[in-house]
Amino acid sequence: MAKDITPRDSDYARWYTDVVTRSTLADYSPVKGCMVIRPHGTALWENIQRGLDGMFKATGHENAYFPIFIPKSFLAREAEHVEGFAKECAIVTHTRLKAVEVDGRRTVVPDPESRLEEELIVRPTSETIIYSMFAKWIQSYRDLPILLNQWANVVRWEMRTRLFLRTTEFLWQEGHTAHATHEEAIEEARRMLEVYRTFAEEWLAIPVLTGTKTESEKFAGALTTYCIEALMQDGRALQAGTSHDLGQNFARAFDVKYQSAAGDWQHVWNTSWGVSTRLIGAVVMCHGDDDGLVLPPRVAPVQAVIVPIWRNESQREAVLAQGRALCERLVARGIATRLDERDNVNPGFKFADWELKGVPLRLELGPRDVEARQVVAASRLDRSKTKLGWDGLEEAVAAKLDEIQAGLFERARQRREQATRDVETWDEFLEAIEEGGFVRARFVPDPEVEAEIQQETRATVRLVPLDGADDPGPCIRTGRKASGRVVFARAY
Amino acid sequence: MAKDITPRDSDYARWYTDVVTRSTLADYSPVKGCMVIRPHGTALWENIQRGLDGMFKATGHENAYFPIFIPKSFLAREAEHVEGFAKECAIVTHTRLKAVEVDGRRTVVPDPESRLEEELIVRPTSETIIYSMFAKWIQSYRDLPILLNQWANVVRWEMRTRLFLRTTEFLWQEGHTAHATHEEAIEEARRMLEVYRTFAEEWLAIPVLTGTKTESEKFAGALTTYCIEALMQDGRALQAGTSHDLGQNFARAFDVKYQSAAGDWQHVWNTSWGVSTRLIGAVVMCHGDDDGLVLPPRVAPVQAVIVPIWRNESQREAVLAQGRALCERLVARGIATRLDERDNVNPGFKFADWELKGVPLRLELGPRDVEARQVVAASRLDRSKTKLGWDGLEEAVAAKLDEIQAGLFERARQRREQATRDVETWDEFLEAIEEGGFVRARFVPDPEVEAEIQQETRATVRLVPLDGADDPGPCIRTGRKASGRVVFARAY
Repeated sequence: MAKDITPRDSDYARWYTDVVTRSTLADYSPVKGCMVIRPHGTALWENIQRGLDGMFKATGHENAYFPIFIPKSFLAREAEHVEGFAKECAIVTHTRLKAVEVDGRRTVVPDPESRLEEELIVRPTSETIIYSMFAKWIQSYRDLPILLNQWANVVRWEMRTRLFLRTTEFLWQEGHTAHATHEEAIEEARRMLEVYRTFAEEWLAIPVLTGTKTESEKFAGALTTYCIEALMQDGRALQAGTSHDLGQNFARAFDVKYQSAAGDWQHVWNTSWGVSTRLIGAVVMCHGDDDGLVLPPRVAPVQAVIVPIWRNESQREAVLAQGRALCERLVARGIATRLDERDNVNPGFKFADWELKGVPLRLELGPRDVEARQVVAASRLDRSKTKLGWDGLEEAVAAKLDEIQAGLFERARQRREQATRDVETWDEFLEAIEEGGFVRARFVPDPEVEAEIQQETRATVRLVPLDGADDPGPCIRTGRKASGRVVFARAY
Repeated sequence: MAKDITPRDSDYARWYTDVVTRSTLADYSPVKGCMVIRPHGTALWENIQRGLDGMFKATGHENAYFPIFIPKSFLAREAEHVEGFAKECAIVTHTRLKAVEVDGRRTVVPDPESRLEEELIVRPTSETIIYSMFAKWIQSYRDLPILLNQWANVVRWEMRTRLFLRTTEFLWQEGHTAHATHEEAIEEARRMLEVYRTFAEEWLAIPVLTGTKTESEKFAGALTTYCIEALMQDGRALQAGTSHDLGQNFARAFDVKYQSAAGDWQHVWNTSWGVSTRLIGAVVMCHGDDDGLVLPPRVAPVQAVIVPIWRNESQREAVLAQGRALCERLVARGIATRLDERDNVNPGFKFADWELKGVPLRLELGPRDVEARQVVAASRLDRSKTKLGWDGLEEAVAAKLDEIQAGLFERARQRREQATRDVETWDEFLEAIEEGGFVRARFVPDPEVEAEIQQETRATVRLVPLDGADDPGPCIRTGRKASGRVVFARAY
């Protein structure tokens, strides 16, 4: 296992691609902009799904599944919504292939007779199709709230793609709810924002800021978009999840109404919220190093790997037998443990291989360890080594994993703190943006001004903090009176 | 809850649709041929997924995810394959919508400038895209076998659709493997057939026959298609799962080769195998009755429901308090239990509602039961009622559920035995097919003859039993010498 990964310092973008592909998280596919999520990446996504799904159910949501196709007219019904997605749609127009001869070669072409009367859009998001069903299911206030979630693939035609961060097809979950009042809908949107923050911080060990998007950055069709925003090691921000208060925009477009206890008919209030396989990109970029992935123990497909070490056949037998016994004990304790029994590669190769794949804890087991009834535990977080005795090994390994989980979060939090600064003038702003990181500046949100700033600096308003309105002063750009600071950064 | 379900006797097809929609498993969507899987149906599918996924992992498979789009030229590369799927493809041709005015009305149309150079097909199955990746990943015999599975949505444009049984989009899993030898591939295809048989019988309580498809019924591109075949209550067969020995057909089309230990290059041998949301249709049609769904306990989203019964407020408090305590105990034991606390409907309504939804066991809890420290358990299988004491309730309920699981299978098995007959002559064949069920007849498989028979009787060869070649005699239709019997039926 040659460490043929480009160092972060020399080319961060290439480092990212190297880590994702060499660690076998994902690979490029022959379909432009689409990736293949390989078993290691799929196992990581399944752990993320399991964690989130539990939190969705604990907050009263149920899963459902809606069609992948959206009739064109549905997408068009909410004006901002169609404008937001029109330029990145996969459009289905035909339903049959027909064999023809072109230049003497047999090939297949769409059969003109199979042209659809109305084109279908491969869902870029499912508000329209889901709320058309809500209109059918909701009659009375007794039918509310509806609290649904869908795990699905979606397609947004992207010009410049990057594995996990921005792909034409990606996997995600989209929550969709309907409520009797705006207050309830806002409460729901904020509750799910908090679920996302908790998940990012406690499961992925990624510290995030929470806030709202400005008008120019919000979801097409929302009243308010709440978001969690993370900072990557190169000082660029990454939007990691959004939760939308949709108001009654879609309810009006799809005539979703309920009869209140008093007997009158009202439009419902909707929310939607989603995170995607992009979270995997965030994990890679937040924690990875020049040796590869570093996975947070709570979502790592393999939490501990036992690497047996031997010089001759009789050692091999003894070491493997003990390795199997220890592996079984750890698995029985619920720790995802693998024993690397390969005999065509040496221990050094195995060390590098599992480091590349981001396994949080390596347990080395050689003949002398067997004699001393111990393993040598090497942490992927900081390479520290500790001897752990076989008695009570389960608890010791679980404690180590907790320590790594906490250490990863703390390292990322410190990195973010160091890369966050307050600026007071436009010159300070320019300098800070150039250095990277989160830049907190007083600002009066305004689409035109934001476009100018983005043009000049490539920075955007990442969010307006929920509690940030209490720090008035002049807007960094216009001098107008700002009520508080917003967070700027260059972003993925 | 009016029992407004069409009885099976009067119209089996309408009964089926009534049960699926009223039990809230699924609903029709505004997209032709596509359905919405509602929370009850999604929870059932998730349980089916969990069961199968565990069996796939136990047999050495890992999950991965491949793009939803297949370039047209990929589909066309295997001749039989493209012929099999050409007539039911969703074809993506454009990637942008453009606002235009038509008769003074603003609308959106596919932007001609966004026409794709090569059309993309929404996957009807993924052999081509997956094996193109295998070609990249496989070099040496050391890379084999590759044992992958994918959980995904697929699209096959269907003219006549029926909820779960035949929909334009459906959810499924597709296993894809590559092996060094044909023997290994055959062994794998048969192993997964056995996994499907076990799952159908032990989890879904559906007895199935196993065998191979004839040439005219096999998968487009396979050498041999193995299948499990179930019998529904109306005497029609349902193909419930298939496992394909693909030989080297796709390996040649996509040049998937490995270098053997001896140093020469060989094409790999592939298998693929899948089951889909169709299994939910099979569960409905195999076990359901005129009161609604009957779900096998092992996959039921709710295994037991506690219905509290009270006449006045003080009874209500006491009964609910006990209901909650019992519910907690059962949940702690791993039994999916729900307490129905609704106070706007009466117990009779609740009984009918949970029967409709197929919950295997109802636990009635009234004031007298509280006094006697018992519940009255009513089985969805046969409506039998048993009093169960609170002490050891967990074990008693678990035992009841096992009993219902076994009883469902046994009832279905007996029904199938009674509806399976051997026939010796063409007249007997015609009569038996008219009566419904599985008809075992000596037959020499031949596509033309099979087409004739289907034309005349609507019956097809469901399978050739794996061990059925030891019963020679004249072919039912042609008089030619047949080596044994095959199984005919009218099928979904």
